[in-house]
Amino acid sequence: MTIKFSTVLGIFGSPSDRFVSSGYRPPVPLEKMFEDTKKVEDLTGIELVGTWHINENNVDEIKKYIKKYDLKVSMIIPDIFAQARWGNGTFTSNDPKIRKDAINEVKKYMDIAPELGCDLLDLWFGQDGYDYSFQMDYIKSWNLLIDGIKECANYRKDVRLGLEYKIKEPRTHCIVATVGKTLLLLREINMDNVGLVLDVGHGFVAYENVAESIALAKMFGDKLFQLHLNDNYRLWDDDMMVSSVHVIEYVELLYWLKKTGYKGWYSLDIYPYRENGVEAANESIGWLKSMMKALENTKDSEIEQVLSEGNATRSMNLVRTMLLKY
Amino acid sequence: MTIKFSTVLGIFGSPSDRFVSSGYRPPVPLEKMFEDTKKVEDLTGIELVGTWHINENNVDEIKKYIKKYDLKVSMIIPDIFAQARWGNGTFTSNDPKIRKDAINEVKKYMDIAPELGCDLLDLWFGQDGYDYSFQMDYIKSWNLLIDGIKECANYRKDVRLGLEYKIKEPRTHCIVATVGKTLLLLREINMDNVGLVLDVGHGFVAYENVAESIALAKMFGDKLFQLHLNDNYRLWDDDMMVSSVHVIEYVELLYWLKKTGYKGWYSLDIYPYRENGVEAANESIGWLKSMMKALENTKDSEIEQVLSEGNATRSMNLVRTMLLKY
Amino acid sequence: MTIKFSTVLGIFGSPSDRFVSSGYRPPVPLEKMFEDTKKVEDLTGIELVGTWHINENNVDEIKKYIKKYDLKVSMIIPDIFAQARWGNGTFTSNDPKIRKDAINEVKKYMDIAPELGCDLLDLWFGQDGYDYSFQMDYIKSWNLLIDGIKECANYRKDVRLGLEYKIKEPRTHCIVATVGKTLLLLREINMDNVGLVLDVGHGFVAYENVAESIALAKMFGDKLFQLHLNDNYRLWDDDMMVSSVHVIEYVELLYWLKKTGYKGWYSLDIYPYRENGVEAANESIGWLKSMMKALENTKDSEIEQVLSEGNATRSMNLVRTMLLKY
Amino acid sequence: MTIKFSTVLGIFGSPSDRFVSSGYRPPVPLEKMFEDTKKVEDLTGIELVGTWHINENNVDEIKKYIKKYDLKVSMIIPDIFAQARWGNGTFTSNDPKIRKDAINEVKKYMDIAPELGCDLLDLWFGQDGYDYSFQMDYIKSWNLLIDGIKECANYRKDVRLGLEYKIKEPRTHCIVATVGKTLLLLREINMDNVGLVLDVGHGFVAYENVAESIALAKMFGDKLFQLHLNDNYRLWDDDMMVSSVHVIEYVELLYWLKKTGYKGWYSLDIYPYRENGVEAANESIGWLKSMMKALENTKDSEIEQVLSEGNATRSMNLVRTMLLKY
Repeated sequence: MTIKFSTVLGIFGSPSDRFVSSGYRPPVPLEKMFEDTKKVEDLTGIELVGTWHINENNVDEIKKYIKKYDLKVSMIIPDIFAQARWGNGTFTSNDPKIRKDAINEVKKYMDIAPELGCDLLDLWFGQDGYDYSFQMDYIKSWNLLIDGIKECANYRKDVRLGLEYKIKEPRTHCIVATVGKTLLLLREINMDNVGLVLDVGHGFVAYENVAESIALAKMFGDKLFQLHLNDNYRLWDDDMMVSSVHVIEYVELLYWLKKTGYKGWYSLDIYPYRENGVEAANESIGWLKSMMKALENTKDSEIEQVLSEGNATRSMNLVRTMLLKY
Repeated sequence: MTIKFSTVLGIFGSPSDRFVSSGYRPPVPLEKMFEDTKKVEDLTGIELVGTWHINENNVDEIKKYIKKYDLKVSMIIPDIFAQARWGNGTFTSNDPKIRKDAINEVKKYMDIAPELGCDLLDLWFGQDGYDYSFQMDYIKSWNLLIDGIKECANYRKDVRLGLEYKIKEPRTHCIVATVGKTLLLLREINMDNVGLVLDVGHGFVAYENVAESIALAKMFGDKLFQLHLNDNYRLWDDDMMVSSVHVIEYVELLYWLKKTGYKGWYSLDIYPYRENGVEAANESIGWLKSMMKALENTKDSEIEQVLSEGNATRSMNLVRTMLLKY
Repeated sequence: MTIKFSTVLGIFGSPSDRFVSSGYRPPVPLEKMFEDTKKVEDLTGIELVGTWHINENNVDEIKKYIKKYDLKVSMIIPDIFAQARWGNGTFTSNDPKIRKDAINEVKKYMDIAPELGCDLLDLWFGQDGYDYSFQMDYIKSWNLLIDGIKECANYRKDVRLGLEYKIKEPRTHCIVATVGKTLLLLREINMDNVGLVLDVGHGFVAYENVAESIALAKMFGDKLFQLHLNDNYRLWDDDMMVSSVHVIEYVELLYWLKKTGYKGWYSLDIYPYRENGVEAANESIGWLKSMMKALENTKDSEIEQVLSEGNATRSMNLVRTMLLKY
Repeated sequence: MTIKFSTVLGIFGSPSDRFVSSGYRPPVPLEKMFEDTKKVEDLTGIELVGTWHINENNVDEIKKYIKKYDLKVSMIIPDIFAQARWGNGTFTSNDPKIRKDAINEVKKYMDIAPELGCDLLDLWFGQDGYDYSFQMDYIKSWNLLIDGIKECANYRKDVRLGLEYKIKEPRTHCIVATVGKTLLLLREINMDNVGLVLDVGHGFVAYENVAESIALAKMFGDKLFQLHLNDNYRLWDDDMMVSSVHVIEYVELLYWLKKTGYKGWYSLDIYPYRENGVEAANESIGWLKSMMKALENTKDSEIEQVLSEGNATRSMNLVRTMLLKY
């Protein structure tokens, strides 16, 4: 199978944090980011973030760049997290006006996406959560969330919505937090066009072994719509280059993607605050290809044999043999 | 409503860890532990652990103590975690013999429990997990787990089985790990006599705000069968005295128990390695009663108003006013 | 002893994060922030951050506001972290030009501070660290750090420099990371005008019990120059309101401040992203005063007796009795 | 340079935890453990733990095995952590009798070690700490610790004492916790025969990049006496096989050991609860040798060039090129 690599467009931009809010690099013009995609080997897809890269007024411009730089739009991420008005939640806001605005923001991109040849939206509810105790009526909020997602999913069944979970940030507690909660939510919603966007780093921060999360997504409805690839030190969403910390877990999760028949994009979602975006993308894809090649050069039957034994010394020996040069 | 307090019996025993495997105190005779319950104010229930406190041969002895010390058995915890033979898993073991033995061990206590006036078993799958990558076929294991639980639940519908999740220990990754995964599992199993045992400390280790977990258990099937109360520093299951670290989160979760109509036991599951068990139990119940009284002396409408606003400064002001002396 | 309360001025501003980089509120004019200090009960001091609030060109304006609003400047925090040019480090930068610029930036504020009646600077080396393995020559960097701090400390001995440690953010690894490393560094530097700024939340993120860190700062040179007060969930610098998570640890650390004779400011360093800054400050100071009053109304001899016993059930009983209303 | 590999003897024994206190395997006779060392390739040293493997009465037996199996004793670890009597601390106990007993226990092994051709003891103060707030007078305890270590170090200057830090377990807070605190302590003690035993896993749990910790130990007195090698998921001392989680950080720390001229043992300290000890040792040493070979086949000048640049994409490219097969 040919692997399709994609990236969030912002990798070529100027990432900011709460201390350097104007960004670690000068602002990058939109077309320059599209242009940079051509410097990344094997990259054929991009993801666009609402407000940051795309809005109702620049769709034609985006179309032009996509054509000019021969790209597919692998996913669109509506902005329901990057403006002050979303700060106290979107689909779960206590303010009906905000709820309606957020739902409309999603619907808007459900109409835009097909124009760009894309049928997938990422719903990341980063602002829907709480920071302190006694700050949320959880049942009320979960019900609002379910209702809002259903309303969107019913709006157009030809566009898929992928829920991206994250346990914290920007809230100290986001409610769509873990693979378990998200699969539970998907089961409650029970619609074919609603599934999962699995951000590997978000899984690590929730102390998930992402290979297992992929298995569960398969088992409970074959729900994995899209992958976000990055790495971190397990305690925060550092959005580092792929497998720069977790080499072995990455090899395992790549195997499970293959084993469960994942056919979607392998999409980078990293924040190269202090790195050159092109180099960071190339290096991330380089690691992915090295690990994929190690898997290709190992018989599945050998891996399956090791999995069936549950003997950890055999597991580590397998990884060493597959992966290391010496 | 009258609150019913319970404890695991082992609180009066001699806890061990991996360094002091013979225990931090001399061994305590079984009856002495029952006797100690009388020194704890308001304690009326006990939980018994298989092998450690109860087995098929001492049921009459246990009956005698229960009567003599006027206790209710709030829950029985079959031993599917405390023997070397369970070390590589029970219901998910790769060895069919072990799987069968573990299922039979549970069924055995499903028959014993009613004899002791108890209708609830705690299924804690601490050994069902993995430590390393490439050590488990996750889908196979999850299916075995579901099958095993169903088999037990069908064995006797008059006995309830409460699944207790924990993200790690003794395995680096346990598969029944979080509130989300467990509610998903319960939904898949979909049987009235299978529900949740929520250990507050296990929730904290999984970065859950336990008040929210209680709300979700209500929302997805009213599944909360029993509570395990203890505290920790969020990164490990320290099994400390109640609210010795998380005062505010405890107040909030006690409120949500009330709000969701929880009618079960408030059962201590602490490991007083270096403390006197009676004192540790008294102090834990003391904190619980102080916090419950603070809630009783606050109007629900005031709390609901704060929840509906989502304004954190109001939330913290509410807690301060309810709780603090000055 | 009269407690002196202070805050970072930014509490009244518009905090941003990496998703909402323009801030969760509209920009707040400088004087408005000064004005807001008057709405906070018992607040008499402010801390100013370079670039954000103060620079070489607005010193007179600041003087005017200080006089007008009757404030003391409790500390100045030179900007060696909030511009893109500092992104790869300041005193430890591989670029000698950047190192020199950063040292000069500190010296500049060593000259400005006395003009504002302030003799204390906070040196927070947030950008001096690394994100990935094989990214730093640690020995070279530590030596550059020591040299740079000494150069500044020798520049003016009448101005004190307080090192503020933090284990991560904005780098995944900051080198001035923990109380141990910082006291070691202070001992190596060995100058009277170089000491410690202890941010309570930074201590929590490093899994420190801050009471112990205060004791160590006393023991190893009486080095505690200033406190930054806030709270978090232990895994990230959430900069929440004081004691909104860690009530008991806060009571203990307040006791140790008293016991070790701390005479400096009690200064808030919180980020009320979604809260009203005035309310967040009032609530934080409200909690501090409640806890201080609980300590005042307890005999030191009773607390010392508990400390000398090391019996945790007594410790928790003490806290309950001191603190709780019921 | 020839690398010397060692292991704790207990790797061949029967590890227990708090649930399976009798061990995950049947008890292993002492000589059997020595015999097993011969099945591990390149293993030439062993570490002995007091009480568990060695005591004043079996020294001749140990001598016999060492000769018979041609082994060096790389370090002895006196038991000041594995008996109930040490549960509330050793050198810092509130009970002078316990303090004296613990100090004598260490001195006893200072006399035994040379008889076995060993000049190094590991002082691991796992029980010297606290679990709750208000449970310790930190200054008093730190002073007792310093006094006790000095007394031991003065007892025999021909025997070296290596302090092994660990941030938690068995206490929720151990006082000899981090590399910073330990180097500070060593500087306060300031004796040539007192240094550091660095357990890599303990460093990870304290969120240390162990390569940096090695650099600091070099810089602040060349204090690294011995290494303990294992791995974990960063949040708990899982004592897993070497580099089974942190491949890249392991490569980096091996480089820094070489760069700083470390000449001591590479000693395994893993707990193969469910694994065969011989296989776990072989696999761990196998990984170490693979990584060392990768370093040998890379020019130091190339690595130094990368370190001097601080460019993370170059760092990750270096690692990929050095390490991976494809």
